[in-house]
Amino acid sequence: MINVKYVLKRDGRREPFDRRKIEYTCIKLGVPDDVARRVSLLVERRAYDGISTRELLDIVFEELAKVEPIFLEIVDLRSALGRLRSKPDFEVYARILLRSIGFKTKPNLMIKGKCLEYEVDGLAYSNGEVYIVEAKHHSNPHTYTKLEDVMAIFSKYMDIVEGFREGIHTINPAGVIIVCNTKFTEHAIRFAECKGIKLMAWRYPKSRGIEDIIRKGHLYPVSILKNLDNEEMYKLLDSGIILLMDLTKIDPSMSIGIPRCRIIQLKRKAKKVLDYLSSSPEISLRRSPELSL
Amino acid sequence: MINVKYVLKRDGRREPFDRRKIEYTCIKLGVPDDVARRVSLLVERRAYDGISTRELLDIVFEELAKVEPIFLEIVDLRSALGRLRSKPDFEVYARILLRSIGFKTKPNLMIKGKCLEYEVDGLAYSNGEVYIVEAKHHSNPHTYTKLEDVMAIFSKYMDIVEGFREGIHTINPAGVIIVCNTKFTEHAIRFAECKGIKLMAWRYPKSRGIEDIIRKGHLYPVSILKNLDNEEMYKLLDSGIILLMDLTKIDPSMSIGIPRCRIIQLKRKAKKVLDYLSSSPEISLRRSPELSL
Repeated sequence: MINVKYVLKRDGRREPFDRRKIEYTCIKLGVPDDVARRVSLLVERRAYDGISTRELLDIVFEELAKVEPIFLEIVDLRSALGRLRSKPDFEVYARILLRSIGFKTKPNLMIKGKCLEYEVDGLAYSNGEVYIVEAKHHSNPHTYTKLEDVMAIFSKYMDIVEGFREGIHTINPAGVIIVCNTKFTEHAIRFAECKGIKLMAWRYPKSRGIEDIIRKGHLYPVSILKNLDNEEMYKLLDSGIILLMDLTKIDPSMSIGIPRCRIIQLKRKAKKVLDYLSSSPEISLRRSPELSL
Repeated sequence: MINVKYVLKRDGRREPFDRRKIEYTCIKLGVPDDVARRVSLLVERRAYDGISTRELLDIVFEELAKVEPIFLEIVDLRSALGRLRSKPDFEVYARILLRSIGFKTKPNLMIKGKCLEYEVDGLAYSNGEVYIVEAKHHSNPHTYTKLEDVMAIFSKYMDIVEGFREGIHTINPAGVIIVCNTKFTEHAIRFAECKGIKLMAWRYPKSRGIEDIIRKGHLYPVSILKNLDNEEMYKLLDSGIILLMDLTKIDPSMSIGIPRCRIIQLKRKAKKVLDYLSSSPEISLRRSPELSL
């Protein structure tokens, strides 16, 4: 008799434990293949029937930390994105992601539509076209962005388009881009695709999701550091230190309300973590989307 | 020195206690002018600086109950509407309200838009035109319906219109009517007015809000009965007994899971309450919208 262990997914579904998914998760986290394999075996041994994916990820990080102590220093990327504040951090971060894939951006601004004046989270320029940017952030990284959210954004966008047509403003948007730290529901995706709304979200579009953009551009947010408390983190973010990369370049004598010695320590950590995460092979190329935790 | 008492409103604002508002509230509840005046004086005596509107309403009901014991039997209309379930009760109720002001209605159905298939909460017909009905219910009667909700509904409506234009279905909606048990934010109202969306909500439009429609048509929901527990209430609602009026006509031998003797008791209560609430003078005519709790 084979003893199949089931994993409880966040949406309530159960699926058989699959060691390859653990291996794949490890590889995505930047560890070499042989380490990934070893860790996946150790995790398999500790997994029990009915374990949640959250617990499983904790065990992965624990086991990885035994091989690579750097995993004591960081949280997973998905949680790191959730730690950012919706305003202004994630709006700023969304524009960083857009620039990394070739857009020019402008910060948030107010635009008058036909009916109302709206705040938009940025403008993005590419090939002579301008797009309205909407940053959609959930502090719980497992909250889906719903159809209603996308429909509301579409109404806002259309009203801004009408505002242009009626000569109320001079921005003639070619479309709207929603940058989101979480996933979209299936209905939300179908609606967006049908209306020509561009989505940049967790694992969407496949193999060009924000996690891929972040890994390729080494655009890890400072919130990936585990032992950075919120107060310190907000001081960094408020001073424009959004990325680990920014932190590695920080001048320790900057007066941002964090002691110089702590800044030096954080800078060193950031460098170590960034070097580690950036040294990983080009993961996205050998990625199989169905094999992920 | 005059000792002004302030009342803490639900939105956090403070305003001076105004006895006329209490008087007006009482009149709206159907009591004669002289009783309203007497009660307002008693309430004024019991009010203290910093009292919340919720407490004030409780005191109004307590004092009213001393003059008219019927007020021991009922909750205020706003809370009564909140007690209904969003689905299906409030959807059914919304259609009852629409019929009372001259629409013909059809129940909820699925309609394919250009992009997606949507559930709409009903269709309303008047003067050869058909409207999409959206019922928006909040169990907390003080939750505002926001701009984003109206924008999402507008997108859905527009997509249904596109569905018609592309020959996907045969319903050619002339507009959308949102029936809501609470208030809308100012932005939501401005957007709706600009886009031609009809709103039927608490105190909107002024002097034709749903509370006026309910009073004029004696369309009090059974949820206005105070000593009706949720289990009993859902049994009534599930059997199609939505209004106090329906309850007064119920056949006590109906098998809806409530003992016959209790049905008789409820029927008697319903009749008493309905007679009382319906005997009030035509309130809306002498109504001044700024004078209300």
